[in-house]
Amino acid sequence: MDKKGILVVVSGFSGAGKGTIMKRLLEEYPENYALSISATTRAPRPGECHGKEYFFVSEETFEKMIQKDALIEYARYVSNYYGTPKEYVLEQLGQGRDVILEIEIQGALKVKEAYPDTLLLFVSPPNAGELKKRLVNRGTESKATIDSRLKRAFEEAQGVEQYDYFVINDELEECVQEVHSIIKNEHARVARNYALIENIRAELKGFAKGE
Amino acid sequence: MDKKGILVVVSGFSGAGKGTIMKRLLEEYPENYALSISATTRAPRPGECHGKEYFFVSEETFEKMIQKDALIEYARYVSNYYGTPKEYVLEQLGQGRDVILEIEIQGALKVKEAYPDTLLLFVSPPNAGELKKRLVNRGTESKATIDSRLKRAFEEAQGVEQYDYFVINDELEECVQEVHSIIKNEHARVARNYALIENIRAELKGFAKGE
Repeated sequence: MDKKGILVVVSGFSGAGKGTIMKRLLEEYPENYALSISATTRAPRPGECHGKEYFFVSEETFEKMIQKDALIEYARYVSNYYGTPKEYVLEQLGQGRDVILEIEIQGALKVKEAYPDTLLLFVSPPNAGELKKRLVNRGTESKATIDSRLKRAFEEAQGVEQYDYFVINDELEECVQEVHSIIKNEHARVARNYALIENIRAELKGFAKGE
Repeated sequence: MDKKGILVVVSGFSGAGKGTIMKRLLEEYPENYALSISATTRAPRPGECHGKEYFFVSEETFEKMIQKDALIEYARYVSNYYGTPKEYVLEQLGQGRDVILEIEIQGALKVKEAYPDTLLLFVSPPNAGELKKRLVNRGTESKATIDSRLKRAFEEAQGVEQYDYFVINDELEECVQEVHSIIKNEHARVARNYALIENIRAELKGFAKGE
């Protein structure tokens, strides 16, 4: 089976529980996964640490990273840059770890373009009513914020067809195991095992010749 | 998640253990799976039962099945027909069971052509040496038979690129669980969940309009 790490993008509606799923995945299988950390030019919020939530860099540094092709993908939202540093991701993949990026749909499609064997997962609650309920139940968001999140969710749902898996987060622990097994099984995809298949073929050819 | 059954073709080198894997799968998950039984015009061998190993039918009956388009795929080997009756397969799929066909590579590709959302799994021992060893260790086959099986295996390995998964049968119970989880996860493929995705989208659209 393929031993190289797989690049995995996890996207999903806000309120779908992506963050929690990924946290659990890394807690349970620390040897299997690495979480990519984004770089950003926005200022850290209270409690955020450099190298944990984000790498906080200056605009100048970020633009140098763009020039040096040191980012897998990047985008500018409002007046800040956000991007995925390449070096760490490639290093972890080379060590056989599956690297998870949590990014939204436009970024995901850019990653897929640059690295066509990226696995794209989309996490959703079982239905939209549940999504609304979860946003409301947080109790921390205003009606306007909830409405704008729901509108954003509708927009995000437009690109889902380009994803590989649509994972329902109904019961958290089940969902974590499902995501884990989807990624694990992906290593057995024929397209990721050409070298192994070629080896077996060459051996069989030898036997058929009576070697 | 998609509730319709998935048509699954399992192929693999003879000696790879396909039969045992499928037997274990049906024993462990009888509610999930149905095994398709082929029809054939060859005579039953001692111990073989009609409706268990095969449906044993006359040449006339088989040709009527062909005419009535009652077979998913069929082929003629030596002087006998072999084929997959359609009715049972479609009935089981409709009931939400995943239906497994154990057929070789030419048949598998015909099934995929007729039913493009068929999942194709190829089972292999970890390497060709292991395959040879298993054939030799059976102790029931002559050297000529083993050689011809190895030659056949080499020929079969030619179509593997058209399969979805390349499953290594190293440790039986692990392999059974892997096959089970591959099939289970397949239900979460985006392409199998368009209706669900459409529903969520329609709901979100409603919320965005303030419904």
